[in-house]
Amino acid sequence: MRTTATDLVGIDVPIFAFSHCRDVVAAVTNAGGLGVLGAVAHTPEQLDIDLAWIEQEVKGRPYGVDLLVPEKFAGSESGGLDREALGDLLPAGHREWLDGLLDRYGIPPLPADTPTGGRSSGVGGMRVDPKSMAPLLDVLFAHETRLVASALGPPPPHFIERAHGAGIPVAALAGSVEHAVRHQAAGADLVVAQGTEAGGHTGQIATMVLVPEVVDAVGPLPVLAAGGIGRGRQLAAGMALGADGVWCGSVWLTTEEAETNPAVKEKFLRAGLGDTVRSRSMTGKPARMLRSPWTEEWESADGPGTLPMPLQPMLVGEAQARINRVAGTPGTPANDLATYFVGQIVGSASMSSVRPTRRVVHEMVEEFVEAVERLTRFVES
Amino acid sequence: MRTTATDLVGIDVPIFAFSHCRDVVAAVTNAGGLGVLGAVAHTPEQLDIDLAWIEQEVKGRPYGVDLLVPEKFAGSESGGLDREALGDLLPAGHREWLDGLLDRYGIPPLPADTPTGGRSSGVGGMRVDPKSMAPLLDVLFAHETRLVASALGPPPPHFIERAHGAGIPVAALAGSVEHAVRHQAAGADLVVAQGTEAGGHTGQIATMVLVPEVVDAVGPLPVLAAGGIGRGRQLAAGMALGADGVWCGSVWLTTEEAETNPAVKEKFLRAGLGDTVRSRSMTGKPARMLRSPWTEEWESADGPGTLPMPLQPMLVGEAQARINRVAGTPGTPANDLATYFVGQIVGSASMSSVRPTRRVVHEMVEEFVEAVERLTRFVES
Repeated sequence: MRTTATDLVGIDVPIFAFSHCRDVVAAVTNAGGLGVLGAVAHTPEQLDIDLAWIEQEVKGRPYGVDLLVPEKFAGSESGGLDREALGDLLPAGHREWLDGLLDRYGIPPLPADTPTGGRSSGVGGMRVDPKSMAPLLDVLFAHETRLVASALGPPPPHFIERAHGAGIPVAALAGSVEHAVRHQAAGADLVVAQGTEAGGHTGQIATMVLVPEVVDAVGPLPVLAAGGIGRGRQLAAGMALGADGVWCGSVWLTTEEAETNPAVKEKFLRAGLGDTVRSRSMTGKPARMLRSPWTEEWESADGPGTLPMPLQPMLVGEAQARINRVAGTPGTPANDLATYFVGQIVGSASMSSVRPTRRVVHEMVEEFVEAVERLTRFVES
Repeated sequence: MRTTATDLVGIDVPIFAFSHCRDVVAAVTNAGGLGVLGAVAHTPEQLDIDLAWIEQEVKGRPYGVDLLVPEKFAGSESGGLDREALGDLLPAGHREWLDGLLDRYGIPPLPADTPTGGRSSGVGGMRVDPKSMAPLLDVLFAHETRLVASALGPPPPHFIERAHGAGIPVAALAGSVEHAVRHQAAGADLVVAQGTEAGGHTGQIATMVLVPEVVDAVGPLPVLAAGGIGRGRQLAAGMALGADGVWCGSVWLTTEEAETNPAVKEKFLRAGLGDTVRSRSMTGKPARMLRSPWTEEWESADGPGTLPMPLQPMLVGEAQARINRVAGTPGTPANDLATYFVGQIVGSASMSSVRPTRRVVHEMVEEFVEAVERLTRFVES
């Protein structure tokens, strides 16, 4: 299954897999797709460890790394503030409201010996400004990364220049035609047209509508379809729309390899189709996640309103860690609060059972072939 | 292009076209698809005239009729109230707010000699209760209608029994898997799985996610994909998802034949991609339409909130007629207010130029074939 997108990075099947979990990344790459490690909350040390581990697993096969490179964030006018200066910007009223929320749901504080940083830091460890991102870029360019992706905003010149200098193509996610055109102008080599049904940061236009328009606007640049894609029929649909492959995130969250918090994984497996909401409660920008009392409390009339990125993730990072630590206890209010980024395919067949990542990829390809054969019969009938 | 859906109604291409405009209905049927006349706001007399006209145009080729058959509406517990009794339920505060809105935007009253009823009655003429729908059913079953559709809620027994008694299959629109399963249980012969990106009454799950789940839930019942579909790549995508055809509404609104209010048609042609909002402001149930000061005023904190169906359309029917009458005047506030039901494809290539309906159908089929050939090459490469 060769397309301009598979040729760009040297893979066999046009499936690009975004995951925070290195095991998923390696498994997708070993199954013929491209695993892309979401590294925005990694420390440089942990990123180095994870990329070395992935390289050992994939034995020369290609993988990618995804960072969030937003254009606008709190402190962006000055090129980014340090975390202490940012911390001073957190309003006391927000902290109080959040403390009250955790109290009401009986969430205990973290034990004093809880390690910080590393892969477990979650949204609280997000690095989005050039200053704190630079060490991550140093690490990834010292490795054999074959694609870097920018999941928010057009990739800035410093990012594109370093990648192209190292011969690495740059992908950029777009939720609108305007974003896609700006990404192309900025020098992106691959555009991910992501519909509103996607998990995580997302716009409002559906994949079905967005992809053909992006393809026509930025062609001949290769385009991946994202949002709502977790099985072969959806892979076929995305490519029927004109894309050269797909970018999937949610479907890996219920795989065997996924490091998804077990309580949240259980919620995903039991969720109804589309039990999600676009909410600013986790990062300060609209991101689709499982609807839970967490999202509802933030949306309620009593809520304090959300803060801009990266203040919101700084504000809620520890709260999220506290919730996730105790969320496994069934029937407790802590379990109610727990949520995570996921797209509208939560509750669909592709996320209702636990499968090995490799099998997800293989079944997608098999069903893709069946779907195309079915379409071919219609043309001939 | 034979599918179980085309076989059900005896057509050549799996394109089902919903339109309030009889010219579009006849043109789609004559191009090989199935035109379906949206008749919820027709008087029985006008429906009789329009169906006779369509039959003269299509010379024995099949066409359908669509009605709104909601399960719940104001008065539904008593089987429907007459329009006078319903009128008494309209709160004075709502009337006052709406009068104030029309005053602020300088909308003059209708001239005293304005005809009421007929095809021009718009949302104000909606008939949704069994009592006022019965005469419409009498008319359509006296004609050669080949499909009846219920665009809201599971088709009620009285509706299914009359249709099946006359040998006419029933289609029902579903925005969720649960709705689709209920439609199947109620006896529907065809399910339209409609994603959130669709115009008019719509749910929240995107077409990409909804269609495969509905196909798997109600199979072997044929399923049409709806929402976000206006060109051949989208037809191919819908069918790649497992559908047996597509149901399109928005794309016809900018055709040569469409009777769309010229001011609104002009707005559609100039709109940005996805310039829409799901709003209860027109019918009392969430329906996607072009975003305008009309939808914004209803959503504003000063708005009175919307009323349940059919009170909301009764409330706003005359206001809509007043707005539409003067909306053609460029630069006036009346022109600002004007809006109409349309899906997220507004602003896309398929709605940015005025084409004959026949050409829209032919280009969809041509692009479908190209998209399938492209997919086939991927499988073979």
